[in-house]
Amino acid sequence: MLGRGEAVGVGEALSILRSSYTAPEPGREEVSLHEALGRALAADIISQTALPEFPRSSMDGYAVFSADTFGASEQIPAYLKLAGEIVMGEAAPVLLLRGQAVAIPTGGMLPEGADAVVMLEYAQALDTGELEIMRPVAPGENVVQPGDDIKAGETAFTKGHRLRPQDIGAMAGIGITYAPVFKRPKVAIINTGSEIVPADKTPRPGQVRDVNSYTLAGMVRLAGAIPVLKGIFRDEYGPIREAAESAISECDAVALTGGSSVGNQDLTAKIINDMGKPGVIVHGVSVKPGKPVIIGVVSGKPVFGLPGHPVAVAVCFELFLRPLISEISGKIDPLEALGIPGVRVVEARMARNYSSVPGREDHLGVALRKDEGELWAYPVLGKSGLIFTLAKAHGTAVIPADRPGIAKGEKVMVRLFD
Amino acid sequence: MLGRGEAVGVGEALSILRSSYTAPEPGREEVSLHEALGRALAADIISQTALPEFPRSSMDGYAVFSADTFGASEQIPAYLKLAGEIVMGEAAPVLLLRGQAVAIPTGGMLPEGADAVVMLEYAQALDTGELEIMRPVAPGENVVQPGDDIKAGETAFTKGHRLRPQDIGAMAGIGITYAPVFKRPKVAIINTGSEIVPADKTPRPGQVRDVNSYTLAGMVRLAGAIPVLKGIFRDEYGPIREAAESAISECDAVALTGGSSVGNQDLTAKIINDMGKPGVIVHGVSVKPGKPVIIGVVSGKPVFGLPGHPVAVAVCFELFLRPLISEISGKIDPLEALGIPGVRVVEARMARNYSSVPGREDHLGVALRKDEGELWAYPVLGKSGLIFTLAKAHGTAVIPADRPGIAKGEKVMVRLFD
Repeated sequence: MLGRGEAVGVGEALSILRSSYTAPEPGREEVSLHEALGRALAADIISQTALPEFPRSSMDGYAVFSADTFGASEQIPAYLKLAGEIVMGEAAPVLLLRGQAVAIPTGGMLPEGADAVVMLEYAQALDTGELEIMRPVAPGENVVQPGDDIKAGETAFTKGHRLRPQDIGAMAGIGITYAPVFKRPKVAIINTGSEIVPADKTPRPGQVRDVNSYTLAGMVRLAGAIPVLKGIFRDEYGPIREAAESAISECDAVALTGGSSVGNQDLTAKIINDMGKPGVIVHGVSVKPGKPVIIGVVSGKPVFGLPGHPVAVAVCFELFLRPLISEISGKIDPLEALGIPGVRVVEARMARNYSSVPGREDHLGVALRKDEGELWAYPVLGKSGLIFTLAKAHGTAVIPADRPGIAKGEKVMVRLFD
Repeated sequence: MLGRGEAVGVGEALSILRSSYTAPEPGREEVSLHEALGRALAADIISQTALPEFPRSSMDGYAVFSADTFGASEQIPAYLKLAGEIVMGEAAPVLLLRGQAVAIPTGGMLPEGADAVVMLEYAQALDTGELEIMRPVAPGENVVQPGDDIKAGETAFTKGHRLRPQDIGAMAGIGITYAPVFKRPKVAIINTGSEIVPADKTPRPGQVRDVNSYTLAGMVRLAGAIPVLKGIFRDEYGPIREAAESAISECDAVALTGGSSVGNQDLTAKIINDMGKPGVIVHGVSVKPGKPVIIGVVSGKPVFGLPGHPVAVAVCFELFLRPLISEISGKIDPLEALGIPGVRVVEARMARNYSSVPGREDHLGVALRKDEGELWAYPVLGKSGLIFTLAKAHGTAVIPADRPGIAKGEKVMVRLFD
């Protein structure tokens, strides 16, 4: 596709991208378990050991041979000979004989011969060296058996699983202290615009400070990828193309952010098309803000031309880059498979009428307020391109393409910002 | 309070902690803007500059003096003299005279004398050097005025605000490239238990590998704090007390994780009481799992004695440590003020009957499945102390203290894991 085409719907843009691009399996690396938090496993994890490896008491009490307690009651207790005690962290030193009991703490190792634990509350040590037992225990009662947590040879986690704190703990429990994980995707950020100066410079008249590389880098990072900042470039073909070529060879995806002027968009589209096939695959999406967005594929890698407006950058990131990063991360999110979104979503009532255009999906920054127990979404209005409209918002209300607008009091779904 | 007391409710435990402990204002540090993502501002940010600093066009078109277009229509267009063009990133070189127009790109600086922009679509440049205008524009139309985004002297963000990607971008836009942020709280983790060996060691009979310091460190990190691992200690007074004293002087909060045996709990309580007043303030909470939890305050810092069971550790973290970390971080979460929880919560139907004990709050690891469009919560059952019950769960269903249980098919709220 060359030049600017017809704006397509958001869903169509995503399916054009899917059909023109296949995410390769990410590279792998080994990281220490603490560093593996939040990362995706690059291989199935098979436990080489049973957990626990030995029978453990789940109560403070007395290890016994259960049959010795059968029929015990408060009226007719059973009497066993107290034959010592189990020390935490040590192998049970004795073989328990019939008619014997040993004191055992929660987590202690059952001695050979014992098959159950009588809780402290139902037993009493007598001066005679005997133990009086008021209740019977069944075989296995109050005992965690070897392999109850996981068996040797069992799959602990499958490839793609995103490691949560308890998963790190579980891996430690089976002795895996280095985890094979997928490399985090790298997303290049190329900031274009002759008017843009670095944020630490004082702009001259006509110039403005760089906003987008900060916003975008933060979003990339929160999505679990590594932002690679390629710098700020004037609206000139040569240096931008050079930066884009280097970004494509070095990174997994490229985002050019630039002005929303026609000249600017044409320059971005030309550079993407000139770099290789298929080049630009989407030019213009029926979304507000973000309509001029360009999606391309070069050397099998996705390249985005984002409009320069900060709000459009944020909306395009949510719609296109976040799902892409999730895909190229190799992560499998079990909750997303259940239809539970990765972002927090709340329902709120619109505090004002808002009119949209049928066929266009609108994303509207909203501030939330609670009034008489109900959440209300107040559109944060402002001219296009203002970054503080986003800074004042709690999230974005999405007005679907099939709605001409939302009347005051109607319910909308609000995607909350991270 | 000395020794073990009566178990109190979760809410009561939290209010005892609140009344015995006041979080001091955290320390401050300056970090570069990229590193400030997710951090809490340690001071109000006042903009020293207007954004934009000059009037900018929000459209591709022609800068004009609006009165020159009044009355223009397709039938009777207005004709202005084309007097050049505005180059992006440069000061407007000319003073626009009455009867003149200059071409201007989106984002370009309006020349002095111009007060509006005619969109490209409603104007046509003629060979005569004139511009034909088919629609009038009002003063200010298609122009972003100086200070429209933010004015000089205006408060951009207030102290405690947690910086999101767009906030980082907005700060860059007003030239703030280093941000004053609160220091992240440090949470010491002291792992006790004579049976525990480091995860990279092979346990001997009776020993198990360290799980809790990994799980807890991950949870602390996800909550925005810095875990400080003090190591693994046998159940002996001296070394644990020494580690706890050093942790209290060095960190903002201390978590001891240990066994659930009576001896173990008594040791933790004694150490907390011996270190200073008020010592133990809560010993036992009506929650399952997690009942033996100890909460103390020493030298004005909170000290937790968590049961050794991995599931209890996770539940106690959610109930007590996460809100505490949030408080001592100095972060103000505007969504929490609106009653929107910081964790994702979904509603699901219980897939089995589950009976609880009235007066006790139960937290039950559940795996979610979707069936005929509805989410069902399947309790991940297992003996206490198994880490893989948590690894197999998507979140925890909370059975409130005033419910005797939940019948199959009834709705429960499920807090999803991070």
